[in-house]
Amino acid sequence: MLTAADTLIATAHAAGLEICFANPGTTEMPLVVALERARGVRAVLGLHENVCTGAADGYARVAGRPASTLLHLGPGLGNGLANLHNARRAHSPIVNLIGEHASWHIAADAPLTMDIEAVAGSVSALVRRIASPEDSGPAMAEAWRAATARRGAIATLICPHDFQTAPGGPPAAVAPSVPLDPWDESGLASAVQALRSGEPAALFLGGTALYGDGLAAAGRVARRSGCALLAELGFAKMESGSGLPPVLRLPYFPEVAAAALGHYRHVILVGAKPPVSFFGYPDKPARYLEGREGVIRLAGQDGDAAAALVALAEALGAREPWTQPAEPLPMPADGPLDAAAICGVLAALQPRDAIVIPTAVTSAQPYAPLACRAAPHLQLVLTGGAIGEGPALAAGAALAAPGRKVINLEADGSGAYLPQALWTQAREGLDVVTIICSNGRYRILRLELERAGIPAGPVATALTGLDNPRLDWIAIASGFGVPASRATTVDELAGALGRALAEPGPALIEAML
Amino acid sequence: MLTAADTLIATAHAAGLEICFANPGTTEMPLVVALERARGVRAVLGLHENVCTGAADGYARVAGRPASTLLHLGPGLGNGLANLHNARRAHSPIVNLIGEHASWHIAADAPLTMDIEAVAGSVSALVRRIASPEDSGPAMAEAWRAATARRGAIATLICPHDFQTAPGGPPAAVAPSVPLDPWDESGLASAVQALRSGEPAALFLGGTALYGDGLAAAGRVARRSGCALLAELGFAKMESGSGLPPVLRLPYFPEVAAAALGHYRHVILVGAKPPVSFFGYPDKPARYLEGREGVIRLAGQDGDAAAALVALAEALGAREPWTQPAEPLPMPADGPLDAAAICGVLAALQPRDAIVIPTAVTSAQPYAPLACRAAPHLQLVLTGGAIGEGPALAAGAALAAPGRKVINLEADGSGAYLPQALWTQAREGLDVVTIICSNGRYRILRLELERAGIPAGPVATALTGLDNPRLDWIAIASGFGVPASRATTVDELAGALGRALAEPGPALIEAML
Repeated sequence: MLTAADTLIATAHAAGLEICFANPGTTEMPLVVALERARGVRAVLGLHENVCTGAADGYARVAGRPASTLLHLGPGLGNGLANLHNARRAHSPIVNLIGEHASWHIAADAPLTMDIEAVAGSVSALVRRIASPEDSGPAMAEAWRAATARRGAIATLICPHDFQTAPGGPPAAVAPSVPLDPWDESGLASAVQALRSGEPAALFLGGTALYGDGLAAAGRVARRSGCALLAELGFAKMESGSGLPPVLRLPYFPEVAAAALGHYRHVILVGAKPPVSFFGYPDKPARYLEGREGVIRLAGQDGDAAAALVALAEALGAREPWTQPAEPLPMPADGPLDAAAICGVLAALQPRDAIVIPTAVTSAQPYAPLACRAAPHLQLVLTGGAIGEGPALAAGAALAAPGRKVINLEADGSGAYLPQALWTQAREGLDVVTIICSNGRYRILRLELERAGIPAGPVATALTGLDNPRLDWIAIASGFGVPASRATTVDELAGALGRALAEPGPALIEAML
Repeated sequence: MLTAADTLIATAHAAGLEICFANPGTTEMPLVVALERARGVRAVLGLHENVCTGAADGYARVAGRPASTLLHLGPGLGNGLANLHNARRAHSPIVNLIGEHASWHIAADAPLTMDIEAVAGSVSALVRRIASPEDSGPAMAEAWRAATARRGAIATLICPHDFQTAPGGPPAAVAPSVPLDPWDESGLASAVQALRSGEPAALFLGGTALYGDGLAAAGRVARRSGCALLAELGFAKMESGSGLPPVLRLPYFPEVAAAALGHYRHVILVGAKPPVSFFGYPDKPARYLEGREGVIRLAGQDGDAAAALVALAEALGAREPWTQPAEPLPMPADGPLDAAAICGVLAALQPRDAIVIPTAVTSAQPYAPLACRAAPHLQLVLTGGAIGEGPALAAGAALAAPGRKVINLEADGSGAYLPQALWTQAREGLDVVTIICSNGRYRILRLELERAGIPAGPVATALTGLDNPRLDWIAIASGFGVPASRATTVDELAGALGRALAEPGPALIEAML
């Protein structure tokens, strides 16, 4: 007998679902059975739901297709919520399948009962409770459509156990997906005029402007007009490297970011919202472009940024591709490790077509300017600020792109949120190299205290310190099945990274700062 | 200058706040500074927010006083949500302090912006956004009162950054807390009649019926009437051990639980809801007491169960305390480890006044009947079914009860949700011994598949298996700073547990099944 769970999975599979990141429990077993029967949908176990949701985000970003998750009631969803928040900010297409008590058991208020809708609503474009066994196909079709609308979004299906096991109907057809918003043709003339003015101008890029045809067109525009290319701080993915148009990521601290944007008389938004500061500080800029002149919108964050750039290039007569190779990167000189040295070693050694995930909060900052000069690669960064996603993003990215090396530049503080993702890397034999920038503190918070002029007393020092005891990342990684080594100098790191990249499967290097 | 953050912390401190489990970020720094200034409120760092919320739950249960948490915006709350769900089911008094963007920055929709109210509402009796700097004292007073109402509840305060740093007023006074609901005097006569009938009868206990005066009165009633004592499956805390009234925890599987309750012509509810099954299965009982005769309610889950039992004992003329020592527990014979042997070793060796936290999902099941014969101790179990709380509960319990040994019987599957809690145990030098029942699988799910008659194919086997690679708990524990050992036989486990209990500070033993 085919069950409604079979119908649900078959509907998704027919629509293109290839992978499900799962941490199921009793209420999800019929969906597990349906995955078993469906074949062709790869089921990947995470030891914690935030591994599943973070990996789904990584997969969706790299593949450009939806991933699904399978999570256990409200608490399972709660565990995965932080990385769904990041995924929402990345516009990643994800369909969450959340098991639920049998429909007749919900009112009994059993221990795991929770308001799933309320929690899911905080990250989902669509939350849909399957209303009957017959509803499972249509519900999945609606969820798939919601997840694939425009750049992508999160759709959450709540699946009562008794409906999963009841007889199911035929798979439902999914309606054509909602395309990207049209770009703003009304902005084209101003953009052309600005770029021809000879005044300093920048394209501020997000979404589809940062890779493929969009980036290539941005490169033609830059070559022709001499404009600068900037990327939003929290981009979902960006192609970068020598020979590609150099795009500078917006800096983190507001006065630096505002100054970077202030250089330009004209700022043309293509695929990005007007940038705002990560946090609001007294006496610091927050809405960088508000109330100033020279801001032109060609495409919003859900807009067809690539098409806008192609049209812009055409209007400018910009036909020459960006081809200039960047100045080669030297390997940093041997010496003790600091953030700049770690990023320098990474940029010098990363192989062509690597996927680089620089999610260490402070230690990855020097990587941004080096990335343009490294071998061409794809970069994924933290979009929603919920730290610890790196190892899970890396697992999902590796599953989406077999044959490409994935390098996650993570920190000890943020990495400690989700070391469980290393286990999925080991289990699936993924080509992920993790570099832990081990500085024994939440350094960003020490910097924030300094910047606020607050001397850190014992409590503030303790609450921002990881040095008592210091985390032993070789032990943690081996505990989760990933071979690990430690580096304390530039040469040691270069040696360890070279060896790790030469071997298949995951590896971790603890870089001691 | 005293800030509104100072006012908030001072209000809580004056009301009795002694501890704050924190994983702060930029938006919480003024509250960190306020904790620094307050002195007398211990700040304990967790590497993950679910450590903070689980430890707050453990602290609140053992101390019987509120704990607070300090969490970073919506994603930080999301990370801690699963253990707040457990804490809600335990009726633990907890005040969550959630930092929020500056009030004027929220509409900018910066990366970390999220609907905090929606997420917090799923676990909180009160969610309150601080409306102005002047509101911080009154808001904290209201939150404290909500958290301490009846048995306890979760109150969540959302604290915009700019309001934290503004000048603050005097601490606010907290109104007297809402007492437990009165017990149901209308049920007393029926209860007395039932217990004098000579027919099989049981008290079904929860809340304050399971420790202290409540348990003592239950013991007098049992001694006088010969009734059985049963506890709800997910109790917040229970005193147990030789010489104490023996209370049997309701079994997990519904047909077993229903049969256990079916033995009794009369079931008297004292401090507990009518029990329901953990999950709803076709053709299995779910609401065990519904539609049957002989159910008497003396006190609901928020009722004054201890007072009800004292009155019941008095009405029965039951003045003799329960003093019978249980039959001593033999140490299991040497041999390979299984769940029964692990629980047997634990019950035989646990010292007097230990706090035992048997949160391994299947491997701790044999512990329940042994607990009545072990040295007197306090037991905490999983209340809300969100697995992985054990190591965090243990940390919080140890902080609430210095000088008492805490023993967490955890599993590999559930333990892998939150190994970060081991670090807090190490950092604070807590007397916690963790026994990991390492069976290399989510055994409960294999059992559920068997019970549903579903043969586990490769996908179901993979999604319920932890054996590829097997977790190395010695490595994981040492990575987080806790010394660890491994036991494969009963004698090895007994030796390792004896050594661990003899040493101060945390230790972990991986028991191989």
